Amino acid sequence: MIYLDNAATSRPKPAEVIRAMNDFMNSVCANSGRSGHRLAIQASRIVYETREAIAELFNVTDPLRVVFTMNATEGLNLAMRGSLHAGDHVITSSMEHNSVMRPLRALEAQGIEVTVVQCSEQGFLNPGDVEKAIKPDTKMVVLNHASNVTGSLAPAGEIGLLTEDYGLLFALDAAQTAGAYPIDVQKANLDLLAFTGHKSLYGPPGTGGLYIREDVQLEPLKWGGTGSRSEEEYQPDFLPDKYESGTLNLVGIAGLGAGVRFAMREGVEAIRERERDLTHRLISGLLGIPGVTVYGGLNADRQIGVVSFNIEGISPSEVGLHLDDEYSVMCRVGLHCAPAAHKTIGTFPDGTVRFGLGTFTTEGEIDAAIQAVSELTERSR
Amino acid sequence: MIYLDNAATSRPKPAEVIRAMNDFMNSVCANSGRSGHRLAIQASRIVYETREAIAELFNVTDPLRVVFTMNATEGLNLAMRGSLHAGDHVITSSMEHNSVMRPLRALEAQGIEVTVVQCSEQGFLNPGDVEKAIKPDTKMVVLNHASNVTGSLAPAGEIGLLTEDYGLLFALDAAQTAGAYPIDVQKANLDLLAFTGHKSLYGPPGTGGLYIREDVQLEPLKWGGTGSRSEEEYQPDFLPDKYESGTLNLVGIAGLGAGVRFAMREGVEAIRERERDLTHRLISGLLGIPGVTVYGGLNADRQIGVVSFNIEGISPSEVGLHLDDEYSVMCRVGLHCAPAAHKTIGTFPDGTVRFGLGTFTTEGEIDAAIQAVSELTERSR
Repeated sequence: MIYLDNAATSRPKPAEVIRAMNDFMNSVCANSGRSGHRLAIQASRIVYETREAIAELFNVTDPLRVVFTMNATEGLNLAMRGSLHAGDHVITSSMEHNSVMRPLRALEAQGIEVTVVQCSEQGFLNPGDVEKAIKPDTKMVVLNHASNVTGSLAPAGEIGLLTEDYGLLFALDAAQTAGAYPIDVQKANLDLLAFTGHKSLYGPPGTGGLYIREDVQLEPLKWGGTGSRSEEEYQPDFLPDKYESGTLNLVGIAGLGAGVRFAMREGVEAIRERERDLTHRLISGLLGIPGVTVYGGLNADRQIGVVSFNIEGISPSEVGLHLDDEYSVMCRVGLHCAPAAHKTIGTFPDGTVRFGLGTFTTEGEIDAAIQAVSELTERSR
Repeated sequence: MIYLDNAATSRPKPAEVIRAMNDFMNSVCANSGRSGHRLAIQASRIVYETREAIAELFNVTDPLRVVFTMNATEGLNLAMRGSLHAGDHVITSSMEHNSVMRPLRALEAQGIEVTVVQCSEQGFLNPGDVEKAIKPDTKMVVLNHASNVTGSLAPAGEIGLLTEDYGLLFALDAAQTAGAYPIDVQKANLDLLAFTGHKSLYGPPGTGGLYIREDVQLEPLKWGGTGSRSEEEYQPDFLPDKYESGTLNLVGIAGLGAGVRFAMREGVEAIRERERDLTHRLISGLLGIPGVTVYGGLNADRQIGVVSFNIEGISPSEVGLHLDDEYSVMCRVGLHCAPAAHKTIGTFPDGTVRFGLGTFTTEGEIDAAIQAVSELTERSR
């Protein structure tokens, strides 16, 4: 089996991730931050160690500014809904996932003005176009770091300079990049960084979080018991408790910690280099097949390991079925929850076939997948 | 070791729960509802099977009315924040956990009127007092099914008749009862039922959900990708997708499914009977120790397996330390995220020592814990 659906979730997970989860379930299996007995303290320690590992990965000074959520989507909702109010203006791009677009469309109905800056057909955003969209009531720029459709990287560094200059909040959706591409919240001047745990951080699904810069105040999405200030019927005002109501996904966080440590041991730079080489190999191979259209910048330096393509004369969903049934190649087809991105690159409403590479993807698998696409294309002519 | 902190999270988890999680991580490890390949379909099937099991447990006709959340707290936030608007009046009790009180206090600041009906010192709610609190603009009654401090059961049946008569929403917080006490959403006339997965449903932390009755409309807490209606930048209006944005805790849901099936195989009635007998044994034993005060109704028929007590002359936290260090008894001490409940039973602000029983608790463990409390009390005189 050739698993090329790493952009949906990475597979396989490192053995140490599964081991950490088993250890939690078998040996700890207590709630954190609530009781004071030895098992509860062990659970709290595991949560803190994961927080620390994530802080280290993103160069966050204070691990308590990293809050855990169910997924990147929840982190993005907290970032946007927690800071935007009627009358505010927010800027985003035309390459966004629905994890950004749907919260923004819902906010629009509440009197928040949304500007969607058009990206190029290759999926690239021009920082100058963002600057042109800034108005006196602009409060935030929210962007994905890399498109989940074409892999195209956003100019995060330039946008960070802009938002600093204009005093705007900069929220980055790192669902596709956390662990796969270097992120430094200080260098990139990020106010808010939403990440998922189950893609390139190698954790289980049900994990993710949001980094919140020191001076940024957000309204919580959820209120409830935090194990702290139990004498108060009001939410504690300190982090991470303010944004972490109810029992956390402790076993998931145990696995995520192991995953983040795995990524740091391998080295994000090294992971990135390997994936870039594989991406280059995949793009080149696909471009060599007559009848195949590859989308995006066609330049592995400017994208991550997510490659969208189509075969002339066959719908993406048919391609997906054949790849699964006949070649045991697992991929994702269609719109990938990103209609705006497909409109931008000209593949709406049918979408594309998407190959998502991971750190366990081999050159042999890339070559076999290219061969499969080549045969399918040949047969359909 | 004697684990009596099951009210914080049940321990141990049945072997089949851990097995289901391992199977997911090792063999499936794909995203659900997104891609169409065989692994993704397996993941979707697991999620649906858990939804079905939960629906069966609570006598919900349509499994799609069960939505998954990170915890009961998120379900309660969705229930309350999704339905209450400025000008609405909501009734709750003085025995609530902060998972109900904190969202309500936050809503109060947004113009929602909150009435907290006073319970008895034993932690019991008089349905007549709820009826007296109903006003023309009352929209919802929200209650916990059993107190996490005293275990006292709420008169859910009577409240369900009231809310039906007056056309109010009835939201029940089943964090302590789901799986440990029979719940039938139809018989109890529930509009909204929030449950956690990691207590008496034997699933892992990070799981829970909300049942939403057919005609009840809620505003989501989060918007985002759902794998459905991918061509739309607006949230789908159908369940469960409307309330399930972003990747779910798939491995947790796999474990939860196994836990719910375990509970159904054992039989909730049978689990309840066993826990009632153990609760009776524990209460009787503690009542026999001079210098120990036990809180609540002191009647196992009217409470679940959660028992709060104090030892004269020693603070709850000191008792907890001794029990852990010297007797390897794990419990929870303090306010248990429920300040209102402690004010009601007269134990604010120091709180109580809480023993939370589970289905794996034995008579021998109860007797040993009673013996430990007896020795500690003796020493402190």
